[in-house]
Amino acid sequence: MRKLTNEKVVIIGGGAAGIPVASNIRARDKDREICIISKDSHCSYSPCAIPFVLEGIIESFDDMVMHTPKYYKEERNIDVRLNTGVTGIDTDTKKIQMGDEEMDYGTLVIATGGVCFTPPIEGKKLDGVYRIMHIGDGMRVKEAMEGAKEVIVIGAGAIGLESTVAFSEAGLKTTLVEALPCVLPLILDTDMSKLVQEKLEKMGVEVITGTSASSINGSGKVESVTVGDKKIPADFVIMCVGVRPNSKLAQSAGITVGARGGIVTDTALHVMKGRGYLPDIYATGDCTEVVCAVTKRPTGSPLGTTAVRQSKIVAKNICGENAIFPPVLSPNICCVGDLHCGQVGLTTHSARQAGIEPIIGKSRALTRARYYPDGKVIDIKLLFSGQKLIGAQIISKEGVKERIDGLSFAMTMGMTMDELIEAETCYAPPVSMVVDPVILAAENAKKKSTTKD
Amino acid sequence: MRKLTNEKVVIIGGGAAGIPVASNIRARDKDREICIISKDSHCSYSPCAIPFVLEGIIESFDDMVMHTPKYYKEERNIDVRLNTGVTGIDTDTKKIQMGDEEMDYGTLVIATGGVCFTPPIEGKKLDGVYRIMHIGDGMRVKEAMEGAKEVIVIGAGAIGLESTVAFSEAGLKTTLVEALPCVLPLILDTDMSKLVQEKLEKMGVEVITGTSASSINGSGKVESVTVGDKKIPADFVIMCVGVRPNSKLAQSAGITVGARGGIVTDTALHVMKGRGYLPDIYATGDCTEVVCAVTKRPTGSPLGTTAVRQSKIVAKNICGENAIFPPVLSPNICCVGDLHCGQVGLTTHSARQAGIEPIIGKSRALTRARYYPDGKVIDIKLLFSGQKLIGAQIISKEGVKERIDGLSFAMTMGMTMDELIEAETCYAPPVSMVVDPVILAAENAKKKSTTKD
Repeated sequence: MRKLTNEKVVIIGGGAAGIPVASNIRARDKDREICIISKDSHCSYSPCAIPFVLEGIIESFDDMVMHTPKYYKEERNIDVRLNTGVTGIDTDTKKIQMGDEEMDYGTLVIATGGVCFTPPIEGKKLDGVYRIMHIGDGMRVKEAMEGAKEVIVIGAGAIGLESTVAFSEAGLKTTLVEALPCVLPLILDTDMSKLVQEKLEKMGVEVITGTSASSINGSGKVESVTVGDKKIPADFVIMCVGVRPNSKLAQSAGITVGARGGIVTDTALHVMKGRGYLPDIYATGDCTEVVCAVTKRPTGSPLGTTAVRQSKIVAKNICGENAIFPPVLSPNICCVGDLHCGQVGLTTHSARQAGIEPIIGKSRALTRARYYPDGKVIDIKLLFSGQKLIGAQIISKEGVKERIDGLSFAMTMGMTMDELIEAETCYAPPVSMVVDPVILAAENAKKKSTTKD
Repeated sequence: MRKLTNEKVVIIGGGAAGIPVASNIRARDKDREICIISKDSHCSYSPCAIPFVLEGIIESFDDMVMHTPKYYKEERNIDVRLNTGVTGIDTDTKKIQMGDEEMDYGTLVIATGGVCFTPPIEGKKLDGVYRIMHIGDGMRVKEAMEGAKEVIVIGAGAIGLESTVAFSEAGLKTTLVEALPCVLPLILDTDMSKLVQEKLEKMGVEVITGTSASSINGSGKVESVTVGDKKIPADFVIMCVGVRPNSKLAQSAGITVGARGGIVTDTALHVMKGRGYLPDIYATGDCTEVVCAVTKRPTGSPLGTTAVRQSKIVAKNICGENAIFPPVLSPNICCVGDLHCGQVGLTTHSARQAGIEPIIGKSRALTRARYYPDGKVIDIKLLFSGQKLIGAQIISKEGVKERIDGLSFAMTMGMTMDELIEAETCYAPPVSMVVDPVILAAENAKKKSTTKD
């Protein structure tokens, strides 16, 4: 086996995947040479924050950025090169190309993130059509908002919805268009999704689901979008249809990608080429394919949290520990104004795709004692396969994130329906009901699984 | 085996233990004769709400009460007799005595709750010395607050602290006296407890720990309390030193109680008499002894949540199901103004009492992304025995209750330190940091368990 120690680590990508690889190596090895190469204009920020800058809750894009390249160089001895595209990887000579320039690596980490998927829709290249992926996109959209009156958001995923709220709050007439039958279609079932749609409509957003935008119209600059038989005027358009693994560079170096376009790795997160895994190249973050903990099938998990967890495993392995990255449940949360929508594991749709007809348990309850002021309605939906908890969706104005996390722990540990029904939760009137709504939802599932109605 | 079906169920106690026995039986059996006998003036309320009525957050004591005896009679066919003390139980003839009156039972449920423990302190029977156990106590204290200027609270448990806040918010000069070295001594370690004490002191409360009140002084009515060498004036005094199982009635019927005074039961919650368990008498709630899930030793769990969970098991068994009540972790939470203090499992003190020197992991972080406005500081302390999670303490202004519940699930399922470090949590800037503070605390414990400092 090759001795990799002390060889230079080159990381392609400076986002939620690349940066933690560097930091976690540095925490273990103060001397290792580390270089991060990124196409982006900034490093070390969470793109999830962009909608909240657009909304004005976070004051400026600068606030989002944790550290600058100067900081990494001076404080952590990590080289960060921004605005630099990597054009090729030679896995034999262990070099990367950046146009005419080359750089040797001892160990390479591919952390190239995702790319916005844009459907083949006419007019998508007109001026005034934006995506929201990088800080630069955010800046351009913020500028476009100035003086604009009407906007159309195509795609009702988390970033699409959070941006929709930002536009609506800024006083823009906002239309949200989703080709699938409901908003947040990848994380919510239709019944839960309705609660979110109602919220948006109350804010004055026009929500169109089950219909694709068929063309973006205008001469030079966006003027309108055709959706079904309507032509909706727009000063600018946001394309948020989906994110795909940015694996082109890896693929052109002969590295294997899966059916969904994600880089295939072993559990140590080495990439695969030909018939074997490469001991000196790792991949991490949105560009990879991971394994679903419920179905055990390949899936994507384009979440900052997954990237950070993968990158820690990569850093450990680069430093000689033998760490493995386990299958994922991908707990996630989207904040639509003050409404928090959390999900973990499978939805009814993804369960059925995996051949599981889930037993459903639902509860609608309060986050505080019935008589305690300002309790919020909380809606919970749990999915079971037999006794096994395989998914959860929660919507409320508080207590969503931590309940999803708790259910993520429960699923990781294989908690059953009966165990969840008997589980202990805490109580005080200002923060809960005596029996937690999660337990009520599990009891509801039990009822359905033991009766025939 | 005796056939118990359709025999009358008599429940002694109409609180968080007695009422759910009745409701859970009725949900399974619409005809069973059920009678609840209670000494209290009201039934079906959570005494935990009393401090919040005193504080004025909950408008009236009536709001606390879920249902009246009239409701139970008319809507659920359950007899509730209030203001009625049970004076004896004859387990042979299957009768209870209420003074001169007798009542037959088919199945008896002892749900007599707790009694305030009052230390042998001089003057404790003076006018103006109150406890906070029942709704009537709350009403008397609310009256005592009118026109009062100074109050002393003896005992810094949950109800003591929550009442202290109520008095302080009402403008009373409030002194809190705790004989043990810190506030919330049964659920918090000293370092965590300090955060709560600081909060109280910032509110203007004088907190005296590590010193007992030696006498309550006054002629007829309270005038002052002697604490150490100080004589502190007081218009009234609250005694919140602790709650003990109210097991006297059971004991006088020959039913076995444990070393801590709680009624001993089998896992089906039958009581014990002589060498055997009685198939027709159950006990549930604060009057019982339970088993600690970590130490496997007898302990108390005077929590409404535990009572409700036990009572469901009792009801199931009365209805012929074979349910068992498992050992407890007793997750609990106390709200000191806007500061939430949650705990589950063992503290450092209770771990050491059980012969365990815990490995400690701590984190201080934020409940939202660093750059997102209004994030709250969150302090987390985790206790491990080797890899095994055995306890947690969390203090913050949000996200405490659900994190404690999640850790309760994790402990129930035997989650290890390494599993917790690798666990998946969700992220969005308005509700979390990328890595949850719980994970950071587990990582901190790992560091300590693998280094020697």
